[in-house]
Amino acid sequence: MSKLTHFNEQGRAKMVDVSHKEETVRVAIAKSSIIVNEEIYNQIAEGTNKKGDVFAVAQIAAVMAAKNTATIIPMCHPLPLTGIDVQFDWFIDRETNHFEILIQSEVKTKGFTGVEMEALTAASAAALTIYDMCKAVGKEMIIGQTMLMKKTGGKNGDYER
Amino acid sequence: MSKLTHFNEQGRAKMVDVSHKEETVRVAIAKSSIIVNEEIYNQIAEGTNKKGDVFAVAQIAAVMAAKNTATIIPMCHPLPLTGIDVQFDWFIDRETNHFEILIQSEVKTKGFTGVEMEALTAASAAALTIYDMCKAVGKEMIIGQTMLMKKTGGKNGDYER
Amino acid sequence: MSKLTHFNEQGRAKMVDVSHKEETVRVAIAKSSIIVNEEIYNQIAEGTNKKGDVFAVAQIAAVMAAKNTATIIPMCHPLPLTGIDVQFDWFIDRETNHFEILIQSEVKTKGFTGVEMEALTAASAAALTIYDMCKAVGKEMIIGQTMLMKKTGGKNGDYER
Amino acid sequence: MSKLTHFNEQGRAKMVDVSHKEETVRVAIAKSSIIVNEEIYNQIAEGTNKKGDVFAVAQIAAVMAAKNTATIIPMCHPLPLTGIDVQFDWFIDRETNHFEILIQSEVKTKGFTGVEMEALTAASAAALTIYDMCKAVGKEMIIGQTMLMKKTGGKNGDYER
Amino acid sequence: MSKLTHFNEQGRAKMVDVSHKEETVRVAIAKSSIIVNEEIYNQIAEGTNKKGDVFAVAQIAAVMAAKNTATIIPMCHPLPLTGIDVQFDWFIDRETNHFEILIQSEVKTKGFTGVEMEALTAASAAALTIYDMCKAVGKEMIIGQTMLMKKTGGKNGDYER
Amino acid sequence: MSKLTHFNEQGRAKMVDVSHKEETVRVAIAKSSIIVNEEIYNQIAEGTNKKGDVFAVAQIAAVMAAKNTATIIPMCHPLPLTGIDVQFDWFIDRETNHFEILIQSEVKTKGFTGVEMEALTAASAAALTIYDMCKAVGKEMIIGQTMLMKKTGGKNGDYER
Repeated sequence: MSKLTHFNEQGRAKMVDVSHKEETVRVAIAKSSIIVNEEIYNQIAEGTNKKGDVFAVAQIAAVMAAKNTATIIPMCHPLPLTGIDVQFDWFIDRETNHFEILIQSEVKTKGFTGVEMEALTAASAAALTIYDMCKAVGKEMIIGQTMLMKKTGGKNGDYER
Repeated sequence: MSKLTHFNEQGRAKMVDVSHKEETVRVAIAKSSIIVNEEIYNQIAEGTNKKGDVFAVAQIAAVMAAKNTATIIPMCHPLPLTGIDVQFDWFIDRETNHFEILIQSEVKTKGFTGVEMEALTAASAAALTIYDMCKAVGKEMIIGQTMLMKKTGGKNGDYER
Repeated sequence: MSKLTHFNEQGRAKMVDVSHKEETVRVAIAKSSIIVNEEIYNQIAEGTNKKGDVFAVAQIAAVMAAKNTATIIPMCHPLPLTGIDVQFDWFIDRETNHFEILIQSEVKTKGFTGVEMEALTAASAAALTIYDMCKAVGKEMIIGQTMLMKKTGGKNGDYER
Repeated sequence: MSKLTHFNEQGRAKMVDVSHKEETVRVAIAKSSIIVNEEIYNQIAEGTNKKGDVFAVAQIAAVMAAKNTATIIPMCHPLPLTGIDVQFDWFIDRETNHFEILIQSEVKTKGFTGVEMEALTAASAAALTIYDMCKAVGKEMIIGQTMLMKKTGGKNGDYER
Repeated sequence: MSKLTHFNEQGRAKMVDVSHKEETVRVAIAKSSIIVNEEIYNQIAEGTNKKGDVFAVAQIAAVMAAKNTATIIPMCHPLPLTGIDVQFDWFIDRETNHFEILIQSEVKTKGFTGVEMEALTAASAAALTIYDMCKAVGKEMIIGQTMLMKKTGGKNGDYER
Repeated sequence: MSKLTHFNEQGRAKMVDVSHKEETVRVAIAKSSIIVNEEIYNQIAEGTNKKGDVFAVAQIAAVMAAKNTATIIPMCHPLPLTGIDVQFDWFIDRETNHFEILIQSEVKTKGFTGVEMEALTAASAAALTIYDMCKAVGKEMIIGQTMLMKKTGGKNGDYER
């Protein structure tokens, strides 16, 4: 029976022992999104084409947050990340006036445990940063669902949503 | 006309000058959520009633992330936070087998600018930490929409969703 | 003749070169304690049994401090920790009105050098956090002796107090 | 009746709201110590007189840890520290072969709440750093009792041990 | 007679007490530069005009380093920065095949002490980041002289180079 | 043809994938300097001989900055550093009244990629710290050229300036 592994016999949080696990290449892909209004869409789109690229700031925030994951998530293992990338796309439905930035992060390590948390944290940091860069124009933006899309490496088997 | 204030005349990101703004009490409330499966629901609920409290870890992660916001969000001003609280509730619909943890964060400062990003970052960190604590039981959890609910203080007027 | 290895030929601090050392599993156990008054004892004990668990916060502080050791201790090597656990016990002598929380930390790595500092830092952070959580009730708490109890792994031989 | 203020109505940790408190000059003094063997005493004493000053490293670790306190102690308020100093003295009793380094830290702020935790964290970091610098010579060192000595400023009254 | 203020009566580093100083708006401007070869010049210039903007990354590194100054410079006071901006220009002399990126940082606070270190640290971080982004093309880049250009605010008088 | 490797196909910064690279011992040596006036020279020189050692603080700042490089330089890989050392020398020309502190840093790792950025960051942090320690005596100090001197390890071949 599976159980919450992050608790010790006193019922308090611990960082699970992974000393016995194999150091292998592990990859995780996560996604998030942020729904903006048309005015913000226009201003980001212009900035991306010319200068003032909101996504450039969000990208860097994501990369730095991925490296910083073990200090943000209390029971997360520190891992020597070997690669981080983040991609942005627009999903636009002009009929419903829907403007949504799709965020996808991919994180790699060669380490003792997976990098799901690093990928999720990167995607969240990107979304939060876009919010911060655009909040002077409107605070009603909504950060969309954030989830793990894929995970490979490690003996527990791969995962794909 | 409103515009993205975070860019300088060279079109690159800057941290906006707020030296002229007044130091006042400011409050922001944000929310997020995480959808889990029934097994995770059962294990969290048991832990909360007895010991092994997932929410205790998430709460602390949220408080620490709020304090850490200016190092996570690149153009965010460092602010001396004066109060942080996070609350958790369950939204359960057994007909559709829906188990969702509702997260609400509230952050206060007495400073030159608002604490929207701190509240949003706290809520996100809580959701990510719950994911981390429960991912051994199932990786299909989904972090739900994350958004600002309310903001008071500062001369730009209050905001309520 | 043994000597302080942390100094270079100019007599200033350096981080000792461990490139030649073997990457092996290393474990360290440290302990600390904190002496509280009866009122604090009662309030912690109630919280632990019901809710408001001081030890849950101290536990998380200890885990995060262990991961953060190389940024707290200047000449300490950064190490990819693979496991961290902290345990609490009460030592109570009602005759002398003595209420003491015993803290034991255990840290593991698979790395080039030992984790004594991580275990000691974790135990200290737990004690400091308990002080912080209880200082509104009384500031006369005393953090007791902090020491290394055991160390295994590495070619210099094991240590047990 | 006093109670643990760091818990919210859900019984989980929060960072207490201090927005209403007055921003005043506040000072805290804490002490710790570390008991070493004669060989370590000799090597530190030589280094201090010539070069290779263990206390110089411990001093800096203490200052940086004081500034870093709100990231080490989960519910501690971030404060703009305005002054930090650390002093070292030897307590030596050659009859009992007792060599102990006495550490005293003093921290100042002009802020909403006190700096007890900053002073205690500084003293602990100094002791831990001395341990780290000397552990190649002997691991049996013991960090002595750590406690608050004095606190001034704020409306709750001063404290002196 | 002026003297090094950062040392206490034991001759060890302290963070100077500024509790008595006035909280005023303070500004500092610093500059640095980095000399690159023609190939790097071409690649950066192309990237800036189209996409892949090296300066965007350097800008963000500078802003984050400014906020992080008190954790990089041991005796530096933590300050609530209220504005940070960085500008880049090319100084090119094709006769001598000289391609140099000029970096200027400007940092503001409303605080107890000046922000010279924050401006200098921002400029250095920008230069280091440009080096990092371009080092695959050639490692012979040289970071040029880094210095304070101007400082206003505070009772010690303004400074202009 | 060589190109800037730090950009993805969307033209934004990424942390380059090094999972396929070999984990080998890698060393990098960098240098920087800081030009001071005669008064500062005298005060540092006295302090070094007696007490109040500016270089001791700079050394520690350099070691800690090297460990912290991946959080300062956005696209830099986190690496488990195995050794860090910094040396200081004076270059003095009394005819031209020139007083310059020469800084040399050496950093080692056993990792997937080189430590050029760690060595450069260490040297810069040392220079910035000396500036901070002496700025009360005079703000016209100039941080001299900062550059990589040597690099060994890794399959791209060694580099020596």
